Amino acid sequence: MPSVTVPPAIDSDRLWSSLMRMAEVGPSPNGGSRRLAMTPEDVAGRQLLLDWVESLGCTWQRDRAGNLFIHRPGRENHLPAVAMGSHLDTQPLGGRFDGVLGVLAGLEVLRTLADNAITTRRPLSLIVWTNEEGSRFAPAMGGSGVWTGRLDEEAFFSATDSQGISLREAIHACGEGGDLPLGEPELDAYFELHIEQGPVLEEQGHALGIVTGVQGIRWYDLSLRGQSAHAGPTPMTYRRDPLLAATALIQSLKEQVMADPQGAARLTVGDFQVVEPSRNVVPGEVRLQLDLRHTDDKRLAELDAAVERLAGAAAEAEGVELSLQRRWHSPVTPFDDDLIASLRRAADARGLAAPAMMSGAGHDAVHLSHVTPTVMLFVPCRDGISHNEAEYAEPEHCAIGTQLLCDTVLERAERD
Amino acid sequence: MPSVTVPPAIDSDRLWSSLMRMAEVGPSPNGGSRRLAMTPEDVAGRQLLLDWVESLGCTWQRDRAGNLFIHRPGRENHLPAVAMGSHLDTQPLGGRFDGVLGVLAGLEVLRTLADNAITTRRPLSLIVWTNEEGSRFAPAMGGSGVWTGRLDEEAFFSATDSQGISLREAIHACGEGGDLPLGEPELDAYFELHIEQGPVLEEQGHALGIVTGVQGIRWYDLSLRGQSAHAGPTPMTYRRDPLLAATALIQSLKEQVMADPQGAARLTVGDFQVVEPSRNVVPGEVRLQLDLRHTDDKRLAELDAAVERLAGAAAEAEGVELSLQRRWHSPVTPFDDDLIASLRRAADARGLAAPAMMSGAGHDAVHLSHVTPTVMLFVPCRDGISHNEAEYAEPEHCAIGTQLLCDTVLERAERD
Ligand SMILES: NC(=O)NCCC(=O)O
Ligand SMILES: NC(=O)NCCC(=O)O
Repeated sequence: MPSVTVPPAIDSDRLWSSLMRMAEVGPSPNGGSRRLAMTPEDVAGRQLLLDWVESLGCTWQRDRAGNLFIHRPGRENHLPAVAMGSHLDTQPLGGRFDGVLGVLAGLEVLRTLADNAITTRRPLSLIVWTNEEGSRFAPAMGGSGVWTGRLDEEAFFSATDSQGISLREAIHACGEGGDLPLGEPELDAYFELHIEQGPVLEEQGHALGIVTGVQGIRWYDLSLRGQSAHAGPTPMTYRRDPLLAATALIQSLKEQVMADPQGAARLTVGDFQVVEPSRNVVPGEVRLQLDLRHTDDKRLAELDAAVERLAGAAAEAEGVELSLQRRWHSPVTPFDDDLIASLRRAADARGLAAPAMMSGAGHDAVHLSHVTPTVMLFVPCRDGISHNEAEYAEPEHCAIGTQLLCDTVLERAERD
Repeated sequence: MPSVTVPPAIDSDRLWSSLMRMAEVGPSPNGGSRRLAMTPEDVAGRQLLLDWVESLGCTWQRDRAGNLFIHRPGRENHLPAVAMGSHLDTQPLGGRFDGVLGVLAGLEVLRTLADNAITTRRPLSLIVWTNEEGSRFAPAMGGSGVWTGRLDEEAFFSATDSQGISLREAIHACGEGGDLPLGEPELDAYFELHIEQGPVLEEQGHALGIVTGVQGIRWYDLSLRGQSAHAGPTPMTYRRDPLLAATALIQSLKEQVMADPQGAARLTVGDFQVVEPSRNVVPGEVRLQLDLRHTDDKRLAELDAAVERLAGAAAEAEGVELSLQRRWHSPVTPFDDDLIASLRRAADARGLAAPAMMSGAGHDAVHLSHVTPTVMLFVPCRDGISHNEAEYAEPEHCAIGTQLLCDTVLERAERD
């Protein structure tokens, strides 16, 4: 028989002031945060959290990757813990909510239980994953990747930042490595609250989204090599211009993406570089990065074939050499049906309309879903802007998401 | 009555060994040269030339811009001089012929006259223009620009390199400034021999081209600004992606250029940058540089209108903001008909097929043509490659160009 029947109310002011207090750790010039993974600012953010949870009587452990596990004992401590988590590291000019909200919502749940003198059946865990952003050390979602065994340890620890410092060295220098073996403790479930990082909830006027999975992602590195030549004396017909090939490829790929039958394909060219650029020189080489996403693995595979076909055709048409590297493939990740259903029940109980939606971005929850039942909740962020100092989520929306997290975590923690 | 009727023969081995000796001044890693304008290497190249011409009994002067004028007296020194010239400065990883050939061919003409004890009626001048390349200090063709009054003095002297050093400071530091007033001495004609820097002569199997003018050039700076956004959660229809606008613009402009009725339009995008690039972020801004050329001013004007129209349309279609700046316009420059005719006569006299052709690149001769009768000669360069350490011109072709230069300069210098 569950010890809690009416879920306790979280304290929305306390949640907001924790968010604002954390934002001051590593403040960025225009009101955001700068806590790059395994820098003194990142450590200071973790320390602030630890000060808070220690005053609640929680204990904590770290693993070799610097992942931080905060424990709140249950009535039956031999059972696997129900976990909440996200990350505290940020982009170089990052916002105050991306990742932070998921961690501090977890803190607010622990505080709410303490206020109400509630001890859950199963123990609870609040997890801070190392280097989710991937902006100092590639790839993103590294801490959860290595903990779940889905990212190679060597790839994780040997990744270097722009100064040539490895993540292994940075963890050591910060004193953030611990003894907990990778993959421990065993978890009963994993919940992650996050801002949407896109415009859909806001546009549709919803305060909450129930995330049923994460769309598939494919990353590519392309290089096109032609013949550098003087812009003046070289007739068009003599040229082998890799920039013209690259722009033709992007346009034809865009057409495919816009014609997607489900309207769900996404194409981003986040980087496009001319090697040794000069105003009056036909480029000898251009390099570009493609990010391609879809909620349907079959369509993503078709688009992947289109990348290869269209890149080959564009290169051939301009007489340039193509090198196409597939850098990352994260297939469509479905979340756990039982957890989705419990979020739906909790939303209904609170009278909240919460659309089911796919996550456009990868999150630590993608890796977690492969080792434990996992689900996510989204709250809107203003204008869909994220990875930006201007990132903003309404206090009311943060509170609603945190309340739903509290409700479902409590239900899960009491279950037989 | 001319003092020379059969033109003397230049010494092709001497010319080649001078070219190879000059290439050793500021050698670049892969067999080219690195003599950036107004660096110690540039000064050393000029000094080597001065050592050579002083041994011929020539005198020299410099103006404030560092332009170097070498004088060979004639029989009637009150007459304006017949001038030959080009430049000794190179690209950062430059070739051994671009500019250098024109100067050392002029040296070879002076040496040939000395060998044959010929004194021309008019005095001769061999000119080394400052900063033709424009790679350390923009714009290109600066020394001839300021000397002819077509480039503003302030724009010339205040241009800074990537270290913030102004050309004024660099000329002073090198001790290359002189007393000769800008615009002096008065010239009777200006001849410039140059490598073609393109593939046409080589493809057509010609050793020589008679340059009837220089095509028109237009330079543009474009910036397109949209909204930076996360590549994952942002549906295509919500995006304002400046990179997609830029690639659409380039493709539509390319279509216009390829459909040119005269087949003479040229489009180069030498630089294309994403501001704050990141693999999984829709760019907030891209910047690009366009170089557009045509041998017909009317068509160039039509293409200029097309740039504005197509850029506006591409920006509107993606909902991004456009900033379009016209950076440079050099109209089509015709060379002097009499000098063209005398080159033709000289080529015929030597039994050389020499097609009339337009120059694709700007040269100091463009500026000179506005103050004195001017013409250029081209010799082929291997694979049309220039601005590159691999630049190469056959000794035989260098010799043929230099012989024609000698023949026509002598004819001009004797004329009534
Ligand atoms: N949330 C987030 O930015 N994850 C990084 C991976 C991605 O690009 O989706
Ligand atoms: N010869 C040469 O490279 N001149 C610079 C101006 C141009 O781009 O044509």
